[in-house]
Amino acid sequence: MLHAAEEIARVLGQDAVCYDTDVLEHHGHSDWSTSNSPGRAVAVVYPKSTEDVSAIARICNNRNVPMVPFGAGSSVEGNFSQPHSGICVDFSFMDKIVAFHPDDMDVVVQPGVNWVDLNNHIASSGLFAPMDPSPTATVGGMVSTNCSGTNAFRYGTMKDWVLNLTVVLADGTVIKTRRRPRKTSAGYNLTSLFVGAEGTLGIVTEATLKLAPIPQATSVAVVPFPTIHAAASAATALIRSGIQLAALEIMDDQQMAILNAHGSPTVRKRHWAEQPTLFLKFSGTTAAAVQSDIARTAALIAENNNTTQGQTAPPPFHFARSKQEEHDLWAARKECLFTMTSMRPAGHAMWSTDVAVPISRLAELIDWSQTECRKLGLFASVVGHVGDGNFHVAMMYDPRDKAQVAAVAGCVQRMMDKALEMEGTVSGEHAIGIGKKACLRDELGEATVGVMRGLKRAVDPKWVMNPGKVFD
Amino acid sequence: MLHAAEEIARVLGQDAVCYDTDVLEHHGHSDWSTSNSPGRAVAVVYPKSTEDVSAIARICNNRNVPMVPFGAGSSVEGNFSQPHSGICVDFSFMDKIVAFHPDDMDVVVQPGVNWVDLNNHIASSGLFAPMDPSPTATVGGMVSTNCSGTNAFRYGTMKDWVLNLTVVLADGTVIKTRRRPRKTSAGYNLTSLFVGAEGTLGIVTEATLKLAPIPQATSVAVVPFPTIHAAASAATALIRSGIQLAALEIMDDQQMAILNAHGSPTVRKRHWAEQPTLFLKFSGTTAAAVQSDIARTAALIAENNNTTQGQTAPPPFHFARSKQEEHDLWAARKECLFTMTSMRPAGHAMWSTDVAVPISRLAELIDWSQTECRKLGLFASVVGHVGDGNFHVAMMYDPRDKAQVAAVAGCVQRMMDKALEMEGTVSGEHAIGIGKKACLRDELGEATVGVMRGLKRAVDPKWVMNPGKVFD
Repeated sequence: MLHAAEEIARVLGQDAVCYDTDVLEHHGHSDWSTSNSPGRAVAVVYPKSTEDVSAIARICNNRNVPMVPFGAGSSVEGNFSQPHSGICVDFSFMDKIVAFHPDDMDVVVQPGVNWVDLNNHIASSGLFAPMDPSPTATVGGMVSTNCSGTNAFRYGTMKDWVLNLTVVLADGTVIKTRRRPRKTSAGYNLTSLFVGAEGTLGIVTEATLKLAPIPQATSVAVVPFPTIHAAASAATALIRSGIQLAALEIMDDQQMAILNAHGSPTVRKRHWAEQPTLFLKFSGTTAAAVQSDIARTAALIAENNNTTQGQTAPPPFHFARSKQEEHDLWAARKECLFTMTSMRPAGHAMWSTDVAVPISRLAELIDWSQTECRKLGLFASVVGHVGDGNFHVAMMYDPRDKAQVAAVAGCVQRMMDKALEMEGTVSGEHAIGIGKKACLRDELGEATVGVMRGLKRAVDPKWVMNPGKVFD
Repeated sequence: MLHAAEEIARVLGQDAVCYDTDVLEHHGHSDWSTSNSPGRAVAVVYPKSTEDVSAIARICNNRNVPMVPFGAGSSVEGNFSQPHSGICVDFSFMDKIVAFHPDDMDVVVQPGVNWVDLNNHIASSGLFAPMDPSPTATVGGMVSTNCSGTNAFRYGTMKDWVLNLTVVLADGTVIKTRRRPRKTSAGYNLTSLFVGAEGTLGIVTEATLKLAPIPQATSVAVVPFPTIHAAASAATALIRSGIQLAALEIMDDQQMAILNAHGSPTVRKRHWAEQPTLFLKFSGTTAAAVQSDIARTAALIAENNNTTQGQTAPPPFHFARSKQEEHDLWAARKECLFTMTSMRPAGHAMWSTDVAVPISRLAELIDWSQTECRKLGLFASVVGHVGDGNFHVAMMYDPRDKAQVAAVAGCVQRMMDKALEMEGTVSGEHAIGIGKKACLRDELGEATVGVMRGLKRAVDPKWVMNPGKVFD
């Protein structure tokens, strides 16, 4: 493997290859994740172009050395870990906006571009890339995990925003999956095959992303509910209504208590009801349209509450009366993961998992998951993209305590099984990585995973592209 | 091949196999298309279940006999033709709605279900399947060509509405691509790989389709423009505005003249300006929201007209003032293909083609295509889904006149080349079939088509699934 690194240094230059132990450690382990592997790459390499990546692939493939692409390192299923060692390919120097076509509403970017930077850069055009995963995430990782975030309810997931990809295959061949039309039915949809493939089929070196017009009028509302079931039921009624919400999120009572106790100053301006709460984002082309959506939503929530719980008072519906308040309310939803992480006791780890089920089953599964987590006697909290039937559970535990680790792992496994029983998925937006390979087999069965394996073998016969991920 | 048919008859019953020449002819040739092959299947077989299809595949694969799935026969690129003969698999008896989940907003259907019937059947739930290709189309063909239609501007294409597929592979293995969550990032996106694969990777025997709420308020407007360029420019401005139109269609002056001369009685209630015309569909959750969209659209069109053409009068903007008028206006757009076909002189054929380009190039390409077509001295007309950068050109010619055939073929080829020069695609929504295989290679290059070929070989090593389509 070291020979591969040396050969890469000869082609790309000594500067492009790093053997520093700290750097290798940083590229091989995530503090955010429980899915880690003891393996480390022998070197991190820094390509500057598609041609560089092609050279790296040619060298690694010839020498049967694994290649593991690395973006921002914010994925949580061990997607960039190196269980079989190999060469880690870091895209820090491929962070250019290659071409911006405002009239076509698309942008061509390298994989190292951060989505927040991209949106700042193009904001004056009135356009934006609507996926909103971790603020640190870069396009390569967003493509490879088929990421989403709070905007997915309105805008779909990453696969819906990629027009084409330039991909370096295992042997160094460079392909482009499509040209640049917004719509096509020409040939197999290779774009969607590489999106979410976690770098196991090829390395993305350029992506053309569709852009959306920035909504001209927006607002935010928060509604606390007596139970998580009532909140999830109201969410289902809203989804069915056809009101086009921009986002529909849920936070449980634990999360709301954390906001009061540990939130940022912005968030603590307000005292939050410590009850399960829906966060709603509205967007439209005019303020009048947004106001009409808000009124209809409030009426629908009141009505749903009466139907499902007898003639009780409707839950208090609070919507932002200024842009500042809108920002502050949404900040509470966006910062919850960071707040939770910061209050973690020293030495404790967080196991964060992610499932999605058909929307009618969501309330039941959230209920069930909360009960299971509480049985552990550990801190556990539910937060999620309820509009998509997708939610996350985070549990804090002491990784040195074997019994705790086993208890948390067992709880996560039962949650997966339950989601599958409900015809759901073991990963809504974090992908499979090394953490959920067995779950994927449970979800789709050996024949379907066998087809995936056959496809990988067709483009990566030596199995050198990010091996050990998705399936074995 | 006949042995395969006989063996199928032994397993499925004699009733399930048909050798009738008229039936074979009907399944092997399309009057709607110029992409036909002289080959015919040796038999048409009629499965009733996934198990039947699996048995057919096993038998055909063992005997190296091609299998060609057949839905409604409305595709136009020879997608169901049988250049290598084989067994034609007709889904007429697999036309059941398997399960309807209104609370999850999805429906499980067999491939023979017609989308209009489906939408009628579920209408009372307030949900619908939003793709609107030919009214005769069935789900299997819609999936396999990644169809769309006038609703694609708002709702995307077929790939965006398929949650999972049950697929029979070449050797008879049955796989399911996903379970039923609306969002997932678990494993490769096999669903999107089979959508648009034209039956060359496997045969779809069941599909779970996402459904959308039926818009509660709608309206339709028509706006004639002095030139097709002005119409296309106004369309681009509308797309950029973020006003969420339900559809945005264009018809050229020839099409509008046809409406006056040959339209149905409904359509001829009105005298149409014989100028390039935009058809706009509005939809929203309230009548007020739709009215506000209409007002903004009218203002934007007037403004765009002033900017691009000096201080001329804005084009007359007419919107429906009743549900009946809304229906009548949209009927004009929907019936144009049928009207054109019915006025075709005896013995004449229609060459209909379909390209899509980045939206900023659309006006130029439509202009260019019209000019090219007029040079031929034949009847030719442009109609299209301008909101997606996608349009169709239809040309009438006498197939017995070799010079005319060559002229039309040359014109279509130049149109493809021009679309590719503009980074577009050779097929926006009709797929590749046998008609556009060379164009696909021109569009994506040999390496990309090579990857597609490798994927096919991985799941269909004997090359028996709809051979001769997409690529060779």
